[in-house]
Amino acid sequence: MRTAFYISDGTAITSEVFGHALLSLFPTKLKHVTVPFIETKEKALKVQALINNSKSSEGDRPIVFHTFVDNELRDIIASSDAMEYDFLNHFTGPIEQELGIAPVPKTHRTHSMHEKTYDHRIEAMNFALTNDDGGNMKNMGDADVILVGVSRSGKTPTSLYLALQYGIKAANYPFVEEDMDDLKLPPELQQNKDKLFGLTITPQRLSAIRNERRANSRYASIKQCRIELKEVEMLFKKQRIPYLDSTSYSVEEISAKILAATKLERHKY
Amino acid sequence: MRTAFYISDGTAITSEVFGHALLSLFPTKLKHVTVPFIETKEKALKVQALINNSKSSEGDRPIVFHTFVDNELRDIIASSDAMEYDFLNHFTGPIEQELGIAPVPKTHRTHSMHEKTYDHRIEAMNFALTNDDGGNMKNMGDADVILVGVSRSGKTPTSLYLALQYGIKAANYPFVEEDMDDLKLPPELQQNKDKLFGLTITPQRLSAIRNERRANSRYASIKQCRIELKEVEMLFKKQRIPYLDSTSYSVEEISAKILAATKLERHKY
Repeated sequence: MRTAFYISDGTAITSEVFGHALLSLFPTKLKHVTVPFIETKEKALKVQALINNSKSSEGDRPIVFHTFVDNELRDIIASSDAMEYDFLNHFTGPIEQELGIAPVPKTHRTHSMHEKTYDHRIEAMNFALTNDDGGNMKNMGDADVILVGVSRSGKTPTSLYLALQYGIKAANYPFVEEDMDDLKLPPELQQNKDKLFGLTITPQRLSAIRNERRANSRYASIKQCRIELKEVEMLFKKQRIPYLDSTSYSVEEISAKILAATKLERHKY
Repeated sequence: MRTAFYISDGTAITSEVFGHALLSLFPTKLKHVTVPFIETKEKALKVQALINNSKSSEGDRPIVFHTFVDNELRDIIASSDAMEYDFLNHFTGPIEQELGIAPVPKTHRTHSMHEKTYDHRIEAMNFALTNDDGGNMKNMGDADVILVGVSRSGKTPTSLYLALQYGIKAANYPFVEEDMDDLKLPPELQQNKDKLFGLTITPQRLSAIRNERRANSRYASIKQCRIELKEVEMLFKKQRIPYLDSTSYSVEEISAKILAATKLERHKY
């Protein structure tokens, strides 16, 4: 099997994301190897040997995605017996011309704690953990967005993704069975109504997810799921809370849709 | 200020990551606008108008990063008055030649729940939440990795990042003040010793982080931080638990270093 390498003097996350997006267009199986933090000549030469070995043992040339700040290290990797993509450098020339500014390469510019937005993202993550499942109603005013919905409709993973990826402070609040007889917003949510965003889901999918947690429980029954979802969707409509059906969307897609709908400011790009 | 646009028929996350890595090389301030889920001709024409307006109101041509599967939609965006980067397509030709396979463009291939690894990642995230802070000692055997260290050394955010980004099941366990007199591994950790990975941190940084949580507490005092860190580092050495100092690393960097050190298999690239 042919190998794809993702190599960098930093985390190699940019190489991974770019390489994954590109290679996923091709219906073939590859072996994936990430080699981060190649910060010395010795390490670069070792990786070069690793790439060349992969070529000789597998026959096919490996595909190498790399981002380096140091030219000497880059040249060592680029001279491997591989198809190599220095995909960032490929575009710096035209951008330099357009902006009229020279690039200032600096190691660990992205994905490091020196990135301006880093503290913001960690703070947002701690906020999401503290304010998961209505944990601290008094903090609702500090949230950028408050996700509401029935238990297991996707609120927690979405809150964490919004925090980690974009530095957005997302609290979340679940409507539970006991609320259903007379469903209304608790005062802390009523006071922050402009921050509410609802998640809903089909009863079938909700029941399947809940069954994984508590098999054959009343909580997981399709009947109970139907009742809760119906009540909560009625509340969303009555209170004009924007909402989306999370059934067939990933956490990334739900987050992107919430950001597009709410115009919340991202703290990281 | 010049605007950078990130546009896609999907989440636009790939455009954001690539554009961010590229633009962060240039010391200039830009306005950033992400426009995801452009799936119809009408929406594409609206975005084209948005881009053209940005040019006429700001003078400078916007920079547009886009990934589209549909050619008609792509052409609408590409004909905007902007510097546009169809950065994935730029590389598909050479990869096609190298692999000898034609690309099969498909919407929502990355960052959707149809990605093979999606369920794995959500399961890993639920695992990290359930097994945060030693929450369920009986589950330790199911973990791919168990992060250990003093309170506030970076275990929780790292566990969640490993889950969300790579589908790795990370539990974490804190050593607390009460353990310090006779610090040893609890039996559940002793049984899974090959899964342990330690995080440490400087007393100064730990004290600063703890002070944000509980200002002027004994817990946050530099003396207490020193004692706990010394005991825990002695345990790491005595038990030969691999560890790293998280003080100056981001969650992304800590995760990349753990993956490199442990050779854990990633479930997503």
